[in-house]
Amino acid sequence: MTAPDLSTAYDAMATRYAEDIPDRYHSSPLNHAMIPVFAELIRAAGDGLVADVGCGPGHVTAHLHTLGVNAFGVDLSPEMIALARAAHPKLRFEVGSMDALTADDASLAGILANYSIIHTPPGHLPVTLTEFHRVLAPGGYLLLGFQAYDGPDELAEPFDHLVSLAYRYSPDRLAGLLHTAGLTEVARLVISPAEDPRRGFPQAYLLTRRPAN
Amino acid sequence: MTAPDLSTAYDAMATRYAEDIPDRYHSSPLNHAMIPVFAELIRAAGDGLVADVGCGPGHVTAHLHTLGVNAFGVDLSPEMIALARAAHPKLRFEVGSMDALTADDASLAGILANYSIIHTPPGHLPVTLTEFHRVLAPGGYLLLGFQAYDGPDELAEPFDHLVSLAYRYSPDRLAGLLHTAGLTEVARLVISPAEDPRRGFPQAYLLTRRPAN
Repeated sequence: MTAPDLSTAYDAMATRYAEDIPDRYHSSPLNHAMIPVFAELIRAAGDGLVADVGCGPGHVTAHLHTLGVNAFGVDLSPEMIALARAAHPKLRFEVGSMDALTADDASLAGILANYSIIHTPPGHLPVTLTEFHRVLAPGGYLLLGFQAYDGPDELAEPFDHLVSLAYRYSPDRLAGLLHTAGLTEVARLVISPAEDPRRGFPQAYLLTRRPAN
Repeated sequence: MTAPDLSTAYDAMATRYAEDIPDRYHSSPLNHAMIPVFAELIRAAGDGLVADVGCGPGHVTAHLHTLGVNAFGVDLSPEMIALARAAHPKLRFEVGSMDALTADDASLAGILANYSIIHTPPGHLPVTLTEFHRVLAPGGYLLLGFQAYDGPDELAEPFDHLVSLAYRYSPDRLAGLLHTAGLTEVARLVISPAEDPRRGFPQAYLLTRRPAN
């Protein structure tokens, strides 16, 4: 699916997403486990700007704000951005692609991509990660949350998803791609399949850092 | 080293530990990352009693309390327990062994063992894990934090430690022992070696659960 098609597909689903996803995020301790850690690290590194890419209805952008982080949201879907603005009128949200962020080189203290690479085909992933690296300041953090795949060799496994074809990624192989993109692993959280009652997939968070100069 | 010797060794180190360890715990976001998640899960499961085994000067017991968890501390070292009581006079601390807890069968909502198996020889670990399983209520959580070993085959690697011979454990192999003891993995966090400036070891947290009846 092309980016415009994906945007249209998420526009059609936006209201339903905005009703369900924030509740699920807040009610599952493991699904938001890494956000306070990420926020603490950003604050300790000097309080810079953070992009929540693929922000959807903006619930995690708002959570980061309550944790003292100067975060803004970006999403491909104009409808999703309209809902995010309506729910959080004081925060900044913009329509955009995570492959072509408007941020200047080395300008961000952090990037959160919370299940945002779910529709990114494996072959395209290096483009996305290179863009993340471009906008991160030295010492900046990238937190990547994703459906995980625990097969032995493959980078990714496709699966059916309500909106569009989706991929789950091998944490080890994805960590390798992040390393190639210039980002160093800081920590990883892997959540067991039983915690995902819908699909029974493991979930993972990879926290990486652009090395300080 | 026997349990009485270990107790004596920690007694001698207690004041120094009480000065350093709580600060290090609070100042490192990754070193306390799993505690709020553990606390949320305990509260969501109904607010039962939690044992912080190997509690040292009681800083994590106290953190759990500020997060709304009814936690008490247990430590082999009477001197450490005296310092914990002095620092947190409203909380409960008791001298005891994590291999012979005073709690009744199936009476605890959770156990935290934060770097407490560091001196447990690999061959003895099943005894300790069986004791943890005994006191956990069905549905109860065990959170185990430890220095990690990423070698391919071994359960553990010994290393020198200020107080006594220590061990770092393979997360995979330790997860296997936990499974054998009747505890199901819920999530694991692995922290990269660079985050441990002293020794350069990875660190890990295994969160497991005794299945609900």
